[in-house]
Amino acid sequence: MSDTPSRTPYLDRVTGPADLKPMSIAELTALAGEVRRETVEIVSQTGGHLGSSLGVIELTVALHAVFNSPGDKLIWDVGHQCYPHKILTGRRSKMLTLRQAGGLSGFTKRSESPHDPFGAGHSSTSISAALGFAVGREVGQPVGDAVAIIGDGSITAGMAYEALNHAGHLKTRMFVILNDNDMSIAPPVGALSRYLNTIGRQAPFAALKAAAEGIEMHLPGPVRDGARRARQIVTAMPGGATFFEELGFDYIGPVDGHNMDELVETLRVARARASGPVLIHVCTTKGKGYAPAEGAEDKLHGVSKFDIETGKQKKSVANAPNYTAVFGERLTAEAAQDPRIVGVTAAMPTGTGLDVMGKRFPNRVFDVGIAEQHAVTFSAAMAASGLKPFCALYSSFLQRGYDQIVHDVALQNLPVRFMIDRAGLVGQDGATHAGAYDVSMLANLPNFTVMAAADEAELCHMIVTAVEHDAGPLALRYPRGEGRGVDMPERGEVLEIGKGRVLQEGSDVALLSYGAHLSEALKAAEMLAADGVSVTVADARFARPLDTDLIDRLIDSHPVFITLEQGAMGGFGAMVLHYLARTGQLEKGRAIRTMTLPDHFVDHGSPAEMYAWAGLTAEDIRKTALGALRPSADVHQLHRA
Amino acid sequence: MSDTPSRTPYLDRVTGPADLKPMSIAELTALAGEVRRETVEIVSQTGGHLGSSLGVIELTVALHAVFNSPGDKLIWDVGHQCYPHKILTGRRSKMLTLRQAGGLSGFTKRSESPHDPFGAGHSSTSISAALGFAVGREVGQPVGDAVAIIGDGSITAGMAYEALNHAGHLKTRMFVILNDNDMSIAPPVGALSRYLNTIGRQAPFAALKAAAEGIEMHLPGPVRDGARRARQIVTAMPGGATFFEELGFDYIGPVDGHNMDELVETLRVARARASGPVLIHVCTTKGKGYAPAEGAEDKLHGVSKFDIETGKQKKSVANAPNYTAVFGERLTAEAAQDPRIVGVTAAMPTGTGLDVMGKRFPNRVFDVGIAEQHAVTFSAAMAASGLKPFCALYSSFLQRGYDQIVHDVALQNLPVRFMIDRAGLVGQDGATHAGAYDVSMLANLPNFTVMAAADEAELCHMIVTAVEHDAGPLALRYPRGEGRGVDMPERGEVLEIGKGRVLQEGSDVALLSYGAHLSEALKAAEMLAADGVSVTVADARFARPLDTDLIDRLIDSHPVFITLEQGAMGGFGAMVLHYLARTGQLEKGRAIRTMTLPDHFVDHGSPAEMYAWAGLTAEDIRKTALGALRPSADVHQLHRA
Repeated sequence: MSDTPSRTPYLDRVTGPADLKPMSIAELTALAGEVRRETVEIVSQTGGHLGSSLGVIELTVALHAVFNSPGDKLIWDVGHQCYPHKILTGRRSKMLTLRQAGGLSGFTKRSESPHDPFGAGHSSTSISAALGFAVGREVGQPVGDAVAIIGDGSITAGMAYEALNHAGHLKTRMFVILNDNDMSIAPPVGALSRYLNTIGRQAPFAALKAAAEGIEMHLPGPVRDGARRARQIVTAMPGGATFFEELGFDYIGPVDGHNMDELVETLRVARARASGPVLIHVCTTKGKGYAPAEGAEDKLHGVSKFDIETGKQKKSVANAPNYTAVFGERLTAEAAQDPRIVGVTAAMPTGTGLDVMGKRFPNRVFDVGIAEQHAVTFSAAMAASGLKPFCALYSSFLQRGYDQIVHDVALQNLPVRFMIDRAGLVGQDGATHAGAYDVSMLANLPNFTVMAAADEAELCHMIVTAVEHDAGPLALRYPRGEGRGVDMPERGEVLEIGKGRVLQEGSDVALLSYGAHLSEALKAAEMLAADGVSVTVADARFARPLDTDLIDRLIDSHPVFITLEQGAMGGFGAMVLHYLARTGQLEKGRAIRTMTLPDHFVDHGSPAEMYAWAGLTAEDIRKTALGALRPSADVHQLHRA
Repeated sequence: MSDTPSRTPYLDRVTGPADLKPMSIAELTALAGEVRRETVEIVSQTGGHLGSSLGVIELTVALHAVFNSPGDKLIWDVGHQCYPHKILTGRRSKMLTLRQAGGLSGFTKRSESPHDPFGAGHSSTSISAALGFAVGREVGQPVGDAVAIIGDGSITAGMAYEALNHAGHLKTRMFVILNDNDMSIAPPVGALSRYLNTIGRQAPFAALKAAAEGIEMHLPGPVRDGARRARQIVTAMPGGATFFEELGFDYIGPVDGHNMDELVETLRVARARASGPVLIHVCTTKGKGYAPAEGAEDKLHGVSKFDIETGKQKKSVANAPNYTAVFGERLTAEAAQDPRIVGVTAAMPTGTGLDVMGKRFPNRVFDVGIAEQHAVTFSAAMAASGLKPFCALYSSFLQRGYDQIVHDVALQNLPVRFMIDRAGLVGQDGATHAGAYDVSMLANLPNFTVMAAADEAELCHMIVTAVEHDAGPLALRYPRGEGRGVDMPERGEVLEIGKGRVLQEGSDVALLSYGAHLSEALKAAEMLAADGVSVTVADARFARPLDTDLIDRLIDSHPVFITLEQGAMGGFGAMVLHYLARTGQLEKGRAIRTMTLPDHFVDHGSPAEMYAWAGLTAEDIRKTALGALRPSADVHQLHRA
């Protein structure tokens, strides 16, 4: 220990939430300041989700001062904002490992700490989860209070509404903290957001409190308590019930989310008095207390490493265009030619690249909010009206609209174009965001055309193909991040549906790649050439319809046939196997392997690390090919003869 | 033509909606009476959804009198209530083919009529669809007005809320007719339902109207119009905004849904004046005008053929216990022993059989409403609290909770037990309700155990196995309808996870069946025995983990190996193929076939008809086996040697 006094004297005393209990409001306020500084310092070195965490520093401290985690269950919706929670719950010393291989997750995670009772990553699950814990308590499980902390963007999702509706019906004691910063990742969309804005501007809690306290101190005990409760369980709308009260919640707020005194008192009273579901409306500022974040348009929602002084991020120089950017630009160019093209995003205008088209054609791009179910059916009806909707979603969020894809799009054969970004493993966001299941979701749906882009030039061709293909639904997947640096076409070409392409011809091993792992297939082919093995590399382009001519030819002319994809079992490889079984080609006894994502979830790391853990590197492909060649030596020789 | 005057003079004049336009209110009222009688007569002969259709007779007539289908888009949510719509839109002569093979669908269906602009079957999609059409119009497509007609049960789903929120944000002209009968299939659940009940009891529209009209007639024209508009776009809540107004809708109501005058005038004014989204709250009585329906607890929601006089249904005598009933009884018995067992249903207490447990243990069964997303995550958190949740859903509705299954259940390895009813083809409800995708959804999810019951005794074993298996998530699928009439165990046995069973041993062909198609496999084996082919029949029981010992043995000892399942590609058969590829067993050159649901949607008919169209009869299995045996004659003889 040096002689320099610690810059974090209060935080140094905290080994867990229990250490916050004896602290005064002034001490908790000082602690919050230390947590804020430390959060900025950590994220400046690790990158991650900064703005959301800075907005809930005081709220996190207050929650841990009032509730007793882990007996009480604090459930952070999405988990973007959980860094201060991690700092206060025994993970301070590991914070510099955040989002790195083997280190802390960027989200809450059950396996990481008992203080993370329910992990997250996708939004709007926290109220359902809190209600589940609260009901667990009522049915006899050793659970304390359940508290969901959810943003004003996340609470607009249908799932959150379903949970509010059920909680209001059950009347079980539970707490929902509405963290209202008028900002999700992008500014939130929808009528409810506008409404929250209105009630957020009404007579603030602080004024009410000051007025009420003046009166209360002169009242006798029991009456004072009643008055205090009345003041707390207050309706913000003059002369009417709030939306949340109509759903059966007691409503408290709005509360200043950066005033420790107000927060702690509100939470204490709510905790002491609540009998049913209570919603506490807390107004916060995303990026609070760090000027570069408060001043940024996105409030520094997600950042790479940055300079603390200036907030300037250390972004690595891109070697090739980013898939998302290519999609945004190319679709906008097509939209300029074809007035029937419209775009749909679910609260991800920037993340999907649709913001580019939105700036040029604001009346033809629709941000529906965090509402994938609606996004899909809304797109289906636009297609039925004669438009060409491009519904751009991340692969893992597409899972939210699966029933609508089956029931409204595939069954009705409506030409919705699903643009599936973040397909495959995505890096530091980890397993919750892995785009693993889109192919297995879609490749067995009648009427669908299912494509994957092997590189950024292929993406250009496939966007144009999607524009022209009006015969039924279509999906196109592409990965997160940079392309391969290939030459880009002026305009893409319309591809023949269900036809792949051969990149190099060989005779021993056929590698049939679907999507962006083509680069690894080509690397593996080079390595195998050095081993003396002659490799054909083909790009299937389509998982549906399959290029059966290509498959037949590869099977007939190679003793070893390997499919390769950045997706789970049940997808492209499975469709190829079903086809081979149906056509009696498995009787040929070829050595067939289907390389897919592994049969376990892959933790966060760099994409390269994750694919290594997944067993999908070029070296893995090489080994698989060699392993398949060896036992089939007889077939091999037959083939050579 | 006989001399007897027609019993349906008004309906006889209707060849399409245009014929309603010149009719007076009195004539429309008479027409409604005729449509009601005819609806009862038709459904008495065909069976189907009676109560919902009877509740919207006047509403349907009024909508067609005021709007211009098919230019205007009438979108019936779910579609249970569309029979009067079908009668009035050119399908009267085909109504007796309803729900029968080759006949009219029991739901709206795009391919059936231009008056069905957006098909349905699953609930809560209509507002998204109407908004999509309305936006299509704004972006230049030839679309008139868009009208969603949605029940008070369906509107509680998160998806409907997402659509309301987006519509309120966009402010596009569109209409939502809230058909409020305080009844979905079961009475609706949730705080919103209670709220609707409250506003439904407020000052009714009729009284307002009478009072206002007295004043209006003395006002000069423009002022009168303004007053009329103010009367129509009225707020039902004294001194506050309704829930729907908070979401950005103009609210009109409540309106008496059986008063033609009131309905037509309200719709006409709304149509003439609306500039943005309008919600019209119409109160109806499910089963209206047919005493046996009005008097029944379920309002005769879904019926078999019945006697018009008494309403008594002609139900066929069951030969074996129904899977749903077996589940309900057996789970209740387990729940009596294990206080940690809880049940979750999404608005289907009777349909899933959970009502049986609910009657005995009302505090341990949760009907969350039409809210599958919430149902799954709520169950996940209950599991995290230490309970044993049995989340009982229909296979096709499970699709609504797919993301939550991946993100909240599988990834966190929480022991939620999914009880998947209506797996496989379901008969007259047709393609929208086919339970085709649950296995492909679940069998590639890490941590999951995925079972299927081959018969009702197996269901008993598997329920007990699900109770005991607390190590991670588990799914159990079983079909609609009756079991096979097998002996039932006193209590089921706990099965070994990942182990199948062999029912009969043979040597030429191995049939590995997953789930309830085992009966067809056994039939096919008998037929093949008559052909001189020796067949092994095995029941895999588990699609995950696979019984790899059994598969290895069957592959080694049979030249032909066939998997069989009542599900789509990418499911059980695909997992077996992936396994065989991974372990190098495809090099053995066995004739392998994976019999699954076909690569097209299967229209409604009896389950037997549907499986015949699907190519999954015993005869289809026989042919597949014989076809696979013939070309592999050499392997065959090798095996015999």
